[in-house]
Amino acid sequence: MPVKNGSQYVERINSSLPDVRIAGERLTGAISEHQAFKGVMATQAAMYDMQHDERWQASLCYSSPLSSEPVGLSFLQPKTKRDLAARRKMMQVWAEAHHGFLGRAPDYMNTAVMAFAAAARLLEEDNPQFAENLQHYYEYCRENDITLSHVFIQPKAARFPPSLARLIEEPAAARVTDKNKDGIVVCGAFLMDTQGVTSDEIFVYPAPFFSESSQDSPYAFAFAVPSRHPGVRFVCRESFVGGDSAYNYPLSSRYDEMDTLVIFDHALIPWNRVFICGNESMLSRLFDGSHFHTHAGMQIMCKNIAKTEFVLGTLEMLIETSGLQGYGQIVEKVTEVIVALETLKALQLAAEKGAALDRWGSMLPDRKPLLAANVYFPQIYPRLVEIVQLIGASSLIMIPDEKDFDTDLDDSLNLYLKGIGLNGKANVQLSRLAWDLSVSAFGGRQTVYERFFFGNVHTVSSRLYNGYEHGRELLMKRVQHFLS
Amino acid sequence: MPVKNGSQYVERINSSLPDVRIAGERLTGAISEHQAFKGVMATQAAMYDMQHDERWQASLCYSSPLSSEPVGLSFLQPKTKRDLAARRKMMQVWAEAHHGFLGRAPDYMNTAVMAFAAAARLLEEDNPQFAENLQHYYEYCRENDITLSHVFIQPKAARFPPSLARLIEEPAAARVTDKNKDGIVVCGAFLMDTQGVTSDEIFVYPAPFFSESSQDSPYAFAFAVPSRHPGVRFVCRESFVGGDSAYNYPLSSRYDEMDTLVIFDHALIPWNRVFICGNESMLSRLFDGSHFHTHAGMQIMCKNIAKTEFVLGTLEMLIETSGLQGYGQIVEKVTEVIVALETLKALQLAAEKGAALDRWGSMLPDRKPLLAANVYFPQIYPRLVEIVQLIGASSLIMIPDEKDFDTDLDDSLNLYLKGIGLNGKANVQLSRLAWDLSVSAFGGRQTVYERFFFGNVHTVSSRLYNGYEHGRELLMKRVQHFLS
Amino acid sequence: MPVKNGSQYVERINSSLPDVRIAGERLTGAISEHQAFKGVMATQAAMYDMQHDERWQASLCYSSPLSSEPVGLSFLQPKTKRDLAARRKMMQVWAEAHHGFLGRAPDYMNTAVMAFAAAARLLEEDNPQFAENLQHYYEYCRENDITLSHVFIQPKAARFPPSLARLIEEPAAARVTDKNKDGIVVCGAFLMDTQGVTSDEIFVYPAPFFSESSQDSPYAFAFAVPSRHPGVRFVCRESFVGGDSAYNYPLSSRYDEMDTLVIFDHALIPWNRVFICGNESMLSRLFDGSHFHTHAGMQIMCKNIAKTEFVLGTLEMLIETSGLQGYGQIVEKVTEVIVALETLKALQLAAEKGAALDRWGSMLPDRKPLLAANVYFPQIYPRLVEIVQLIGASSLIMIPDEKDFDTDLDDSLNLYLKGIGLNGKANVQLSRLAWDLSVSAFGGRQTVYERFFFGNVHTVSSRLYNGYEHGRELLMKRVQHFLS
Amino acid sequence: MPVKNGSQYVERINSSLPDVRIAGERLTGAISEHQAFKGVMATQAAMYDMQHDERWQASLCYSSPLSSEPVGLSFLQPKTKRDLAARRKMMQVWAEAHHGFLGRAPDYMNTAVMAFAAAARLLEEDNPQFAENLQHYYEYCRENDITLSHVFIQPKAARFPPSLARLIEEPAAARVTDKNKDGIVVCGAFLMDTQGVTSDEIFVYPAPFFSESSQDSPYAFAFAVPSRHPGVRFVCRESFVGGDSAYNYPLSSRYDEMDTLVIFDHALIPWNRVFICGNESMLSRLFDGSHFHTHAGMQIMCKNIAKTEFVLGTLEMLIETSGLQGYGQIVEKVTEVIVALETLKALQLAAEKGAALDRWGSMLPDRKPLLAANVYFPQIYPRLVEIVQLIGASSLIMIPDEKDFDTDLDDSLNLYLKGIGLNGKANVQLSRLAWDLSVSAFGGRQTVYERFFFGNVHTVSSRLYNGYEHGRELLMKRVQHFLS
Repeated sequence: MPVKNGSQYVERINSSLPDVRIAGERLTGAISEHQAFKGVMATQAAMYDMQHDERWQASLCYSSPLSSEPVGLSFLQPKTKRDLAARRKMMQVWAEAHHGFLGRAPDYMNTAVMAFAAAARLLEEDNPQFAENLQHYYEYCRENDITLSHVFIQPKAARFPPSLARLIEEPAAARVTDKNKDGIVVCGAFLMDTQGVTSDEIFVYPAPFFSESSQDSPYAFAFAVPSRHPGVRFVCRESFVGGDSAYNYPLSSRYDEMDTLVIFDHALIPWNRVFICGNESMLSRLFDGSHFHTHAGMQIMCKNIAKTEFVLGTLEMLIETSGLQGYGQIVEKVTEVIVALETLKALQLAAEKGAALDRWGSMLPDRKPLLAANVYFPQIYPRLVEIVQLIGASSLIMIPDEKDFDTDLDDSLNLYLKGIGLNGKANVQLSRLAWDLSVSAFGGRQTVYERFFFGNVHTVSSRLYNGYEHGRELLMKRVQHFLS
Repeated sequence: MPVKNGSQYVERINSSLPDVRIAGERLTGAISEHQAFKGVMATQAAMYDMQHDERWQASLCYSSPLSSEPVGLSFLQPKTKRDLAARRKMMQVWAEAHHGFLGRAPDYMNTAVMAFAAAARLLEEDNPQFAENLQHYYEYCRENDITLSHVFIQPKAARFPPSLARLIEEPAAARVTDKNKDGIVVCGAFLMDTQGVTSDEIFVYPAPFFSESSQDSPYAFAFAVPSRHPGVRFVCRESFVGGDSAYNYPLSSRYDEMDTLVIFDHALIPWNRVFICGNESMLSRLFDGSHFHTHAGMQIMCKNIAKTEFVLGTLEMLIETSGLQGYGQIVEKVTEVIVALETLKALQLAAEKGAALDRWGSMLPDRKPLLAANVYFPQIYPRLVEIVQLIGASSLIMIPDEKDFDTDLDDSLNLYLKGIGLNGKANVQLSRLAWDLSVSAFGGRQTVYERFFFGNVHTVSSRLYNGYEHGRELLMKRVQHFLS
Repeated sequence: MPVKNGSQYVERINSSLPDVRIAGERLTGAISEHQAFKGVMATQAAMYDMQHDERWQASLCYSSPLSSEPVGLSFLQPKTKRDLAARRKMMQVWAEAHHGFLGRAPDYMNTAVMAFAAAARLLEEDNPQFAENLQHYYEYCRENDITLSHVFIQPKAARFPPSLARLIEEPAAARVTDKNKDGIVVCGAFLMDTQGVTSDEIFVYPAPFFSESSQDSPYAFAFAVPSRHPGVRFVCRESFVGGDSAYNYPLSSRYDEMDTLVIFDHALIPWNRVFICGNESMLSRLFDGSHFHTHAGMQIMCKNIAKTEFVLGTLEMLIETSGLQGYGQIVEKVTEVIVALETLKALQLAAEKGAALDRWGSMLPDRKPLLAANVYFPQIYPRLVEIVQLIGASSLIMIPDEKDFDTDLDDSLNLYLKGIGLNGKANVQLSRLAWDLSVSAFGGRQTVYERFFFGNVHTVSSRLYNGYEHGRELLMKRVQHFLS
Repeated sequence: MPVKNGSQYVERINSSLPDVRIAGERLTGAISEHQAFKGVMATQAAMYDMQHDERWQASLCYSSPLSSEPVGLSFLQPKTKRDLAARRKMMQVWAEAHHGFLGRAPDYMNTAVMAFAAAARLLEEDNPQFAENLQHYYEYCRENDITLSHVFIQPKAARFPPSLARLIEEPAAARVTDKNKDGIVVCGAFLMDTQGVTSDEIFVYPAPFFSESSQDSPYAFAFAVPSRHPGVRFVCRESFVGGDSAYNYPLSSRYDEMDTLVIFDHALIPWNRVFICGNESMLSRLFDGSHFHTHAGMQIMCKNIAKTEFVLGTLEMLIETSGLQGYGQIVEKVTEVIVALETLKALQLAAEKGAALDRWGSMLPDRKPLLAANVYFPQIYPRLVEIVQLIGASSLIMIPDEKDFDTDLDDSLNLYLKGIGLNGKANVQLSRLAWDLSVSAFGGRQTVYERFFFGNVHTVSSRLYNGYEHGRELLMKRVQHFLS
């Protein structure tokens, strides 16, 4: 089966309903018609449709090496700079389709599974079957255009430091409780399975956190299963979709990706879907060796650029419709956004231009600009949102509803709430956009999500600092030479 | 009639329904039972009940000079430092009742109308009747425990600078379109009538912005009318009340003050409710001369301290239940909140200690620390919220609903989502609180509201700079002396 | 002998020359005539003279309980709020004399020795003689108006964590190498003896840093000796006095306090000057128990307020002579300084108003606002300096010398470099002041000194966080109550 | 004459002494032996020597189209991307020779004069001779390897806004006071002629600031003359060279570029050196049309990258010799520097990669990333310096002198002041470097210089905002499309 289209995406999700709870109720019926999911599914359906649209197909697909049919370009292992550029172009096309608001657009996990599979040989050391499983799984996803989610992080209760863990009576860390001829049995919970419910399958890979190395640790495993797998349960957070109206909720009605807590309750994972089992050190070795952060970083870069562009366009509209372009303090603020945009675009270019082949034959982008961007974006995005608040000011609070324009107050609202070049209704629509970006629960969740996208500031800083060892050494030598 | 109690407050509001639109519908029935209003009305009803509770009455009331009955202490014109202290104590009691989340708790406007009335003699210059009207209105409010809202700011369309205003065909600034024996006829709209719908009356006082001084300007007026006055219409923003559950929405279910756009459509204002008419310069002279910002600043200080204390308490719970107190970067962040709290408390003390009699016989707090706080708080509050996000991290996103604990997943959720010393349900409740503070639309609106409480940064900075003329002069002289 | 005057101060220092090295040379002759020391000594001499000036004597002195002669008020143990206010007034008078640029004005160490002595009884546990030594030493300082410096911190080489310490062959931590009937023998070095050379005596009190508690540790000691004591050597940093001209170097020519490294090379400390010997835990118990940070914090508050006032006066002159008062971005920046000043003054007031008796009978200021100020000032002072740079701009770089105005270019310089209301020469003098504050090596050292005055940000934050235990508990309870 | 070497540079400067005042004295004798100038001249001499060194000549020179002799590559008008890359490589080589501390390394003005000359045809509109003069002047500089300085900015007294200017009796703006057959006569003063004294010639180009356009304005002119031209006088600021010792003053002894005030006192400028005369609008048209900021921006980028690298190398040495690499807060801070470095390098790459031909046939770098960098660097450089202060801490204050290691205290200093892997003397040398970077007057001047390099924040922000018109329009359209 080649790349799927939107209705195939929707149909597959609808026909395979997992165990999902939302506000105490178990989900039934077509997910794509549930208010919490329909917007984001429609957005993704439109993205999958682009794969079949002649305007985009060449940018989004390539020929499968197995079937020669068109498959998603985000599955392509890049072997040349031309491949990298094609991948980037593909990711830009999709990012501009969702303006960067999807943290888990399909190309994110497609890229991840490609990266892991390219490094699958690492797993042979433990068990050649594991390596084969991972390679097969990658091909399965590519050939069937599987929509994937993933989980890395466990709830805090599972991660208390040993000194505090004793305060907790019952162990909460996810673990293999049994192995049998059919597979491994897993118990535990994972946080933040974004789009778990709107994806076909889930990729499970606990972040390693036990210091002691072990060859037979119950805490060391990795696997993938369908979202509807027995023993897998999803608990949703509150939906941040404000309502159906795209006028009132321009962002949340389209882009609210549901986050879920996933609980594995004695879930039996078949052996052919197990990639790691028992070897603590392999968790980090595959993670690092696959260059997950580097490959995923390129996709995220496209997302973050599209998002920054969207913020800048929104600000420019706010400024022009309010006649603010002559104020120095406004120009200084919007210029911060321009600097951020130019910075991100330049870092993306640098990563691509500095690419080199790795041991798996991948043309690996230069990770240094990417790791720098991973430190930078979580700091600048909240500032972008703050600038929207500072420039939007009171028009971010007192905003009527679309329906208010269908009443006898229509004329008054159009008179009093107009902007320069916009009647009241269009101006209020712009305010609602700025509000959904910077004030609504959807906007708030986006800010928190970006703050911690690849870990907290300490994690991303250390990743860059350690990844910069060579550069630091070189420059220290330059100073030593200067002093000598 | 002495101070009212909660049910009197509710009854009066319910029995006097103004013309209110919310999402295109005209409000009917009891406001106090509408989801958008019931929480905040219950909160205020409880506050009014405190006036009749022997634990609080002495703190909240004083004897009316007219009737000798207990009236609200926030109406008291302070003539001594003891009065100031009593007023502060009163405002603290109420601020702690709403933890600083009400920007328009009743004592705010009570204080404002007291301040204006104390300076009413200024109005005699234009018309002795205006002065008398204002003084009578103050007494009316005090004796009847009137709940007031107010509007100062017009929509942007009414405030375009002349160079841009020509782009607008129809004038949008609020103005007097006619005067007759019964009163003045007013057309125009005002932004951000917070609690307009949940108050008895509305005080209208356009911020002066026409540079040319005039004795007969249609744009210069001030008055007060009942919210249900003919020709007055309220258009609500979207309600940010998440739902009825205080577990799920601990803040919005209690404290969401509705903001409204108020439209005056040929509203006839009776002469006895007119305070200013025609004199441009009087608008700013009364505003400045009444020391509105100084008196209101004391009330706001109490609110801001209570709010900062609530943030600090919430953070401390997050820290202790997550075992974070040993991390340097966590301590540094929560310490910022402590510094903010100590700063606000100290500025409040300084304002009170530095008070002096003004020409109206009021014991006027030192405005310098208050104006400093008015610059400081809009900058620090967004940072407090940011700190909640930084410390709350992913537990601000993946939060289940209260009802999820009523299902078969109860045990799992209590296992995986527990904190130190808290079971899962209590820990999730804490997360929901932190979320409502820093991520929800309610939280977002609070942040924007605080940013612009007394104007944007330029406005509040200029107010302090100009109010500091004497100090700047003195210190410049000290440096001149040093250099000479 | 009662309080000394300026010439007595100078004479005593000159007649008792310690072993001082500056740029490889051993200091000889009168210190007060050496360019590196004369300015700061003249400043301090003028301060001591104020003790004999009838305009100030009542503010600066009190009657010795031993001799009834006037002694320095900074030695007074405050037992009432009136005492506290008198102490504050005293410290303000001196702080305004040096505009806050002296970190070690005499009242700083006078206050410290008072605080330690008030808690001397703590030492009785180890040895009653130690307690008596400390009490006697305090009286000796007070009755003889001894000018004191102190050292707490050792060089980094003495403080490497154990894991790194092994990289160091030879132990570098200061320690008692011998004890005999005459006293203890001490080897080691201490950083940052500010004003060591321009003081009579040195108070030595190593910050405790060895975790293991011990009753007989060679690293645990405290004592005081004359600066000229045998075995004590001072190594100066480079002098930052730019030159003799007060026009060119308005600050450094008056206020550059020399910092020194003090080396104890088998210095024999007589028993009657030993306060702690061997007991590790006593080091922190006396430090905490004496409330050193609280008492010293009040003196530092006065200094910091005077300094902030001086910065504000300087900025106001820059603004007025450049006609910048109409620019929003300038007003916003100078307003930050006003907010800082009002904050510091308010925190000072709060500390004084919240004072209470401690177990030594001292009227102890509320430490919370002081600890908050100790977190705040190191963050705001560099910003104040940055604001001077931002407002001063290019006029902080291209500044001629006083002597340039004695040449044929006088007219040109007065034409081209004039300000509003100032001729060129006076305007350049103002520039030189702003430069000395924000660009010169003197200014740079002031900034670094303030950053680390009471420790780095982690240290001062933890001190406040821990000192706020009660408040945190209370507010957490309030939130718990809200949630229940 | 081909590219000069170091001794030719020195000889030419020494043999052509201008009228220079420093601290009231007129400079006589060899400038290259004067303490204030010898370091920077030696640095530049070494840079010129590189032009004759076979290791560098190919990178630094190209064949003159006139003489075929090697001339400086910074004079090359880039016509291809290869040219741009060659220019960048050239500028990197020199920037690493001075580690970015020279704001006016020779390639800066070489680039400027190339940019102006490439656009010389613009001047034909006024007078074909002006265009020819500029083209000839460029060739003269290139063929003779002239070292140039320039002035744009006049003192504040010449720039008061009209409302304030009336407070000033005598006009202070630079102007043409006469024209005769030999040339134009100029009176006025210019600020901040950096390296005016250590350059051969001076290029004068007043920033246009009179709003009214005029064809015959005395304030509109541009020209170049030798520094020793009659009627030209230089007044130096104080030298920030600490002393001769490269150990004590590693930066100032090498890189202190003297800033001067230049006074033109009825200086007669020969017609063949006049480029603009009378036409107000031509000042900005040539400035913009020559793309000065874009071409110069590339050179400054190389400087800023070299400087950031030097800061990073210095920090890494501080960290490693103090064993700080395990501290999270240290890693976060040094990571900020890494992010800055990667950002600058990426922006440089983007500017080069986005280059396109302009109407003068120049391969013009993309100005957007350069303008973004011009906003970014003035904000980040002060932060880099702050990070040096925060990580250096007390070891930036208590630093002995080189000579202290030549005394009997040598052993003690090596014991107490050692670092990990460094003896005391080497560790103190590192401290002196960090001090010279972040605390000394040299360091302070560098910080202020960078803050205002291409104008204040308002100027550089507006330049970027206006230069981003196309992008803003495009993104606004994207949002409009989203909303439609």
